[in-house]
Amino acid sequence: MQKTTTVAQYLIDKLKKEGVYDIFGIPGDYVIRFFGELEKCGDFNIITTCSEQGAAFAADAYSRMNGLGVLCVTYCVGGLNTVNAVAGAYAEKAPLIVISGAPGLSERHNKYLLHHSVRDLNSQYNIFKELTVASCQLEDAATAPYEIDRVIGACIEHKRPVYIELPRDMLDAKCAVPSYHPISPNKKDENTFQEAINEALAMFKLAKQPVIIGGEEIRRYKLEEIFTGLLEKAGCPYATTILGKSIIDESHPQFIGVYMGRLGDEEVRDYIEHSDCIFILGALNTDTNLGTAQFDLSKTIFAAHDTLRIKHHFYNNIDLGEFINSLSEQLVNNEIRNSFKHKEPICFEVQPDAAISVKRFFERLNSFVKENSVVVCDVGDSLFGSVDIKIPKGSSYLGPAYYTSMGYAIPAGIGVSIRRPDMKPVIIVGDGAFQMTGYELSCYVKYKLKPTIFVLNNEGYTTQRYLQEGEFNNIQDWNYHMLPIIFGGGLGIEVSTEAELEEALTKADMNDSSFTLINVHMDKFDKSPTLYRFTQVLSEKIHA
Amino acid sequence: MQKTTTVAQYLIDKLKKEGVYDIFGIPGDYVIRFFGELEKCGDFNIITTCSEQGAAFAADAYSRMNGLGVLCVTYCVGGLNTVNAVAGAYAEKAPLIVISGAPGLSERHNKYLLHHSVRDLNSQYNIFKELTVASCQLEDAATAPYEIDRVIGACIEHKRPVYIELPRDMLDAKCAVPSYHPISPNKKDENTFQEAINEALAMFKLAKQPVIIGGEEIRRYKLEEIFTGLLEKAGCPYATTILGKSIIDESHPQFIGVYMGRLGDEEVRDYIEHSDCIFILGALNTDTNLGTAQFDLSKTIFAAHDTLRIKHHFYNNIDLGEFINSLSEQLVNNEIRNSFKHKEPICFEVQPDAAISVKRFFERLNSFVKENSVVVCDVGDSLFGSVDIKIPKGSSYLGPAYYTSMGYAIPAGIGVSIRRPDMKPVIIVGDGAFQMTGYELSCYVKYKLKPTIFVLNNEGYTTQRYLQEGEFNNIQDWNYHMLPIIFGGGLGIEVSTEAELEEALTKADMNDSSFTLINVHMDKFDKSPTLYRFTQVLSEKIHA
Repeated sequence: MQKTTTVAQYLIDKLKKEGVYDIFGIPGDYVIRFFGELEKCGDFNIITTCSEQGAAFAADAYSRMNGLGVLCVTYCVGGLNTVNAVAGAYAEKAPLIVISGAPGLSERHNKYLLHHSVRDLNSQYNIFKELTVASCQLEDAATAPYEIDRVIGACIEHKRPVYIELPRDMLDAKCAVPSYHPISPNKKDENTFQEAINEALAMFKLAKQPVIIGGEEIRRYKLEEIFTGLLEKAGCPYATTILGKSIIDESHPQFIGVYMGRLGDEEVRDYIEHSDCIFILGALNTDTNLGTAQFDLSKTIFAAHDTLRIKHHFYNNIDLGEFINSLSEQLVNNEIRNSFKHKEPICFEVQPDAAISVKRFFERLNSFVKENSVVVCDVGDSLFGSVDIKIPKGSSYLGPAYYTSMGYAIPAGIGVSIRRPDMKPVIIVGDGAFQMTGYELSCYVKYKLKPTIFVLNNEGYTTQRYLQEGEFNNIQDWNYHMLPIIFGGGLGIEVSTEAELEEALTKADMNDSSFTLINVHMDKFDKSPTLYRFTQVLSEKIHA
Repeated sequence: MQKTTTVAQYLIDKLKKEGVYDIFGIPGDYVIRFFGELEKCGDFNIITTCSEQGAAFAADAYSRMNGLGVLCVTYCVGGLNTVNAVAGAYAEKAPLIVISGAPGLSERHNKYLLHHSVRDLNSQYNIFKELTVASCQLEDAATAPYEIDRVIGACIEHKRPVYIELPRDMLDAKCAVPSYHPISPNKKDENTFQEAINEALAMFKLAKQPVIIGGEEIRRYKLEEIFTGLLEKAGCPYATTILGKSIIDESHPQFIGVYMGRLGDEEVRDYIEHSDCIFILGALNTDTNLGTAQFDLSKTIFAAHDTLRIKHHFYNNIDLGEFINSLSEQLVNNEIRNSFKHKEPICFEVQPDAAISVKRFFERLNSFVKENSVVVCDVGDSLFGSVDIKIPKGSSYLGPAYYTSMGYAIPAGIGVSIRRPDMKPVIIVGDGAFQMTGYELSCYVKYKLKPTIFVLNNEGYTTQRYLQEGEFNNIQDWNYHMLPIIFGGGLGIEVSTEAELEEALTKADMNDSSFTLINVHMDKFDKSPTLYRFTQVLSEKIHA
């Protein structure tokens, strides 16, 4: 006999089974009873932010650290306020379960329009279909458990958002706990697999200057260990994409830097683009990752979760982890082929009275970021400048480097802090981006989170000034460092010179009781070398 | 010979032709050249907010005051950040043109994914199809002018949002200025029209207690004058829906109040629900407007832009304005049938040491709101409490009373102030809603706007406490009145007693140089009579 349960209870049990006990969101009347159920059950930590978008960015960052995140919101006014953030999670492969309340089925047969509705009662569902790999409306108790399993299964498989809509009168609907006959996954074809391995091995064996590029899927599919195994067996240099930055410890001796094509460091680019065998493992083929790459496809092996391309041909149904693992096992030629010349480490000497330049700010940050930190970046020079921060042992890096939605970092820091209270977030955000979501600092006080935050205050949208200058690139100057007065907690410091920055860094290091926000004044036209290259490339497109 | 122009220029000329010279938005690389063109042309006032959602709410409010509004954003990270606000404009019929940049056609044939993209290059377009009455992607210069005309025409006709996507390499594409043979609209059928008028007139003539309810379409289609004409000819009492509040001057002697069914004032409800002939003109049939109405359909005439229902049958193709006008002209029985007993006006006497209750706060506001004001409300008791504010001559009321997205009022205040610099906005917002979008106050400093803002500070989501209490209804307390320190302008005042409130109101009245924000402390469980009724009705649904 099948065990019975309720729709809400089945969903709650499923979240527990997947090991997610932190839930981000804001209640509203269509979902509030589900919040009540979550609270009542006692096993969940419900983190409420100021706005739903903040909750979504926080859940996204949490999912990147954890492997799965959950967002819970009300109908339309809640859900539709997370569309941009969920789009970012889709674009950059963050596995996120979005649960939305909805009008009860019994309310839908009335003659009048229900509040929070848009065109009709499928509008939100239709919109989320564009942003997710699976979605469902739990309108039938008999199928609800299967729908929940299918949708959450797709989230885990594809590492992308999914959407579950829960009508408010379906919570207590009785349903049966499914008993499954598990279906075995597509069995791989051994001949195909071995042909692919052999071809890749042969390319590697003949190569004089092989190189490996690791991408974000290495972390998303938890392949760090086998990726490291391959690196060490291969002995050649490796880089990462910007989305894959810090997939493993950047103090690894074979690490040469972040590869970004024409946007990135020139020595790294030169080495890779002159390589005669390039393994690109687990990377998204995006413009910011590889869009300005200039290498010959006939020298590349591009292996990702859903693709294996060697030179110009494709192999189907090759598992990324198995591929890396087999390569590693079967590699025999392990003579070291590593001629990359590392730059001399920069010896940073403070120039006390000097204004703070973007370049020197990031050079200084290299020694500020210590073990067990998470560097969380926003968009613009926060992202580009931070590419050169060397992420130390036990530390990590997180930035929305492809979707590049401004305002990501401050709410993302909430998700990071909740998931890893043992690690210290270092958050870097531009003033324009801070004005979009900086109010979520309020949650740092509410939940006693203690990151260090740098607001790069250059009076507006500096990235854009190099594309098209205009009055519209200027923003109101805020006294960002005074925000602790508003939120009732936190330490704020304003700095303009290198000496002031040093003092602030010392205070931030010593502050164990709250967040520290450092308002860093910079020249409005100053930019990092990466941003310089980026605006060169982009200007060509805009003024084509 | 046809005149030639460019796609960007045609769009700019069309906006000018429709008389919209204020444009709200934030630039990004996919749209920044269009911002450059707008600025260069010198005729537009470009208002940049902190976040795109803020720009969208501002443009929505502007459109409600003006008859048309324009929002201009970048691709996905911009556009998708406005989805919730545009959904609200759709739901409540605010005519809004959304212009979004997009990747250039020439960039789309590359092998890599373009930044800011979601699933594919139609994702944002597909999403906006759910939120608009017409949309286009300007991918062909030959059809672009026709598409622009069609889409903007639909916005004006349906008073709902439309979406125009402009690839960044199409700005300079040459196109011909169309020469039109205007198509005459569907000619009305005289027999149908006269049958409808006759039926309505007959019902009115026989009625002992007729009543008129005016809705938001009266303002949207600029029918205020002919609506007033009908009222005065009919001589009977009239109410408005909450979305239609203040369509005409509430000091009109026939005005009896806002009708909201079980949610609203009991005397107004009683009079209307005992009426034997109810004209409902230009109202949306939503739950907050009419969803809890308890009257017999066989006594109603429901005339809106797209519907005429008399009793239980429908007439097609009846223009709302013509219908009201003809009724007015043909009404002959003009004996006064008005037995509504108005309440004694409340004589508000300050109790200096008393804490500020919700009820007395709104009673006091009745005399604070003077001629030439615009009361802008957010959601929760800001909305419900303000229903009873009597809007004086030359003044107006604006609140998202159906879609009810929290966080509307502060950015909406920007749109109102830009459109009507001659009117004084009085903005009422709860603390929870303020935490969602209150950072847009920054724009009040940037653009020197001078409204008075009341933050109803009751420590969280009070409306929800009565639906389902839980930790998730509590928010961090902010020193809202200290925000002028952050933004570098504005006057902030904190009040807890009636005497303090009086002093603050005096200061607000005298402040001609900046916004005034009053942080009004209230008990976390206190609520207005309307909110009390609302939570009663809603609780039945949630705990059904």
